[in-house]
Amino acid sequence: MAQSFVDRLREIQTSKTSALCVGLDPDPALMPPHLLHSTDLPDAVLQFCRDIIEATHPYACAFKVNFAFFEVLGEPGWRVLHEVIRSIPRHTLIIADAKRGDIGNSGRFYARAVFEQLDCDAITVSPYMGRDSVEPFLAYEGKAAFILARTSNPGARDFQERSLEGEPLYLRVAEAIHAWDSQAQGTAGLVVGATSAEALNTLRNACPSLPFLIPGVGAQGGDAQTVMRSASTPEGLVIVNSSRAILYASSDKDFAEAAAGEAERLAAQLQPTRGE
Amino acid sequence: MAQSFVDRLREIQTSKTSALCVGLDPDPALMPPHLLHSTDLPDAVLQFCRDIIEATHPYACAFKVNFAFFEVLGEPGWRVLHEVIRSIPRHTLIIADAKRGDIGNSGRFYARAVFEQLDCDAITVSPYMGRDSVEPFLAYEGKAAFILARTSNPGARDFQERSLEGEPLYLRVAEAIHAWDSQAQGTAGLVVGATSAEALNTLRNACPSLPFLIPGVGAQGGDAQTVMRSASTPEGLVIVNSSRAILYASSDKDFAEAAAGEAERLAAQLQPTRGE
Repeated sequence: MAQSFVDRLREIQTSKTSALCVGLDPDPALMPPHLLHSTDLPDAVLQFCRDIIEATHPYACAFKVNFAFFEVLGEPGWRVLHEVIRSIPRHTLIIADAKRGDIGNSGRFYARAVFEQLDCDAITVSPYMGRDSVEPFLAYEGKAAFILARTSNPGARDFQERSLEGEPLYLRVAEAIHAWDSQAQGTAGLVVGATSAEALNTLRNACPSLPFLIPGVGAQGGDAQTVMRSASTPEGLVIVNSSRAILYASSDKDFAEAAAGEAERLAAQLQPTRGE
Repeated sequence: MAQSFVDRLREIQTSKTSALCVGLDPDPALMPPHLLHSTDLPDAVLQFCRDIIEATHPYACAFKVNFAFFEVLGEPGWRVLHEVIRSIPRHTLIIADAKRGDIGNSGRFYARAVFEQLDCDAITVSPYMGRDSVEPFLAYEGKAAFILARTSNPGARDFQERSLEGEPLYLRVAEAIHAWDSQAQGTAGLVVGATSAEALNTLRNACPSLPFLIPGVGAQGGDAQTVMRSASTPEGLVIVNSSRAILYASSDKDFAEAAAGEAERLAAQLQPTRGE
């Protein structure tokens, strides 16, 4: 039997003493100009990501690859995405931030694309279409699907925070995932933004053992200490993502070194909570 | 000013007297075996889609391209996706069935990928993350974003059908889209499954002028006549999708001819509703 995603995560977080995930959102408008001038755009993006990965992986338990920034490159984007993923060293988990979600038949194809073709360890999934749209992503032993519960953006208030039959929609989603996963194989997690301490608390109480992927620290306003206090327990692991603060720590030739410095600083604030 | 999506749709539906959309979900397990034996998988998928497009486009106002079935091909999948889209004749709209949805910054990149790189006319979008995740897709004059409201699959009951502060979530979503779109530029539509006549009625009453993209006729159990009666009005256009019934009408060498026959038969049941 393959080692579970949570067990692999726990091992890596313990050996690196870090719950930090580095988010790869390569935005050409923010990338170091010297990279853009030396080659064509897709290869500049590839070089940028490789340098960031090489510089920051000692401090990161995971990399989160944001598919939007590769798809926007058109045809070469998918090649660059594959090459970036292949360049991530062993002993670092790979999270496909793709926010997929479709009826069962299509869902199975999306899951195969991410788990088999790209060999990622986890994916982010939207719950709007319900159980049969989520289950194909829960069916891979050793992998994980992080379901959007309470996201970090302002739009979280439009539907997620509102009451679905007496409880916030985000909590209804989490409870449903918890139930569906217990019939599966421990392959579920939740996306919970760092921007709402209340949602972090509520969801950790409702789902004590699900791993949380937590975006929104830094540029979006979330705070690392609040996140760890609200959601990190010995049983309930967290993966805390930072993208812009690390990627664009410098836009000069020292960008990779500056990224490593920022990642090291953040990792020190994001030490996994251990049992007694 | 570019012609609006709805005006283009109305023109095409009138000239072709068809509200039929042909869904391109090329599943190798269902494709004609002779295609698979003659070349490698990505090129077989490309050939299959091209033959289906050529045979069925006289009866279709649109093609809906399901991204899952191209992403599963790995690196060559994105090339095949581009080539399939390029092979769709003018005077037929192209809907990217990609179910995207992410925070504003990422959303803008997904929108650019689909509307600028792939030059599609419309995209399907998940509303779970709220307004800032939907707006980047509404910002393209002449294009459209079809937001998931009440989908055709069994999982629609898990969240969409449940009551969000006194009304079904799907209706809350539709009302929000309607409000956001009126501040935009007539670029919004809704995805409403053919499998719930009640949802079709409710949503058409709530949003008399939004175009509906309606999957779920045929293999999923929806009925063409019910759909037209419930949701098609002179003001409220519908696009009714069929995938499997057309694509796999025959698995023999006559597959394209059989697909054309099925598309013609369905188009006759899906005549756009005209004003007096």
